[in-house]
Amino acid sequence: MKVVNLAEKLSMFDTHWDPKVVAAYNGNDIMVVKFQGDFPFHDHPDTDDFFLVIEGEVLLDVGDETHVLGPGELFVVPKGLRHRPRAEREAKVLLIEPQGTPNTGDAETASAKAYI
Amino acid sequence: MKVVNLAEKLSMFDTHWDPKVVAAYNGNDIMVVKFQGDFPFHDHPDTDDFFLVIEGEVLLDVGDETHVLGPGELFVVPKGLRHRPRAEREAKVLLIEPQGTPNTGDAETASAKAYI
Repeated sequence: MKVVNLAEKLSMFDTHWDPKVVAAYNGNDIMVVKFQGDFPFHDHPDTDDFFLVIEGEVLLDVGDETHVLGPGELFVVPKGLRHRPRAEREAKVLLIEPQGTPNTGDAETASAKAYI
Repeated sequence: MKVVNLAEKLSMFDTHWDPKVVAAYNGNDIMVVKFQGDFPFHDHPDTDDFFLVIEGEVLLDVGDETHVLGPGELFVVPKGLRHRPRAEREAKVLLIEPQGTPNTGDAETASAKAYI
């Protein structure tokens, strides 16, 4: 139980699309992640997907729309809705998902999310 | 379902200790709030309490410790733990709590949280 500095946590890794867990809230992982390039389209059948941009610009393709998020902007993708985050240049993002949620909604693409 | 700009939402009200709901995530309220002065000590018996400082400085008395949070710093108070946020000057904060959680954990001090 301590203060989590997001910039400090983000300075601890260079990988993209590789969320790191920095805190827990009621069974949810609070994560920081760096986006760059295009992520595959996917959906999470059982959970909403929370994005808050910390730095940079994120394009979020949701259904047929593209939403543009800058720093201090958040978006919640409702469960079951097909979506894809993209970033032309590196962007830093806070994510919230229930513990154990695969990145892409498919177990086969799940990655183990490390705590930092 | 749209992009939520936190600074824009925070510009829509001047009151302190009066969280406004800006989005929903899996049955949780995502809220922005302005802190100034001391809030009463309280606990939430059934939920963790998520704080992310957007602007300013927040002092968080948790149990016997005081944690100092600046912009881009977050803290999750575990459920049941007595705590009190304070701010000497106005601070702007993102909060997450399950929908229907009273501010102070006591039903009698619950406030209706408005959507903006």
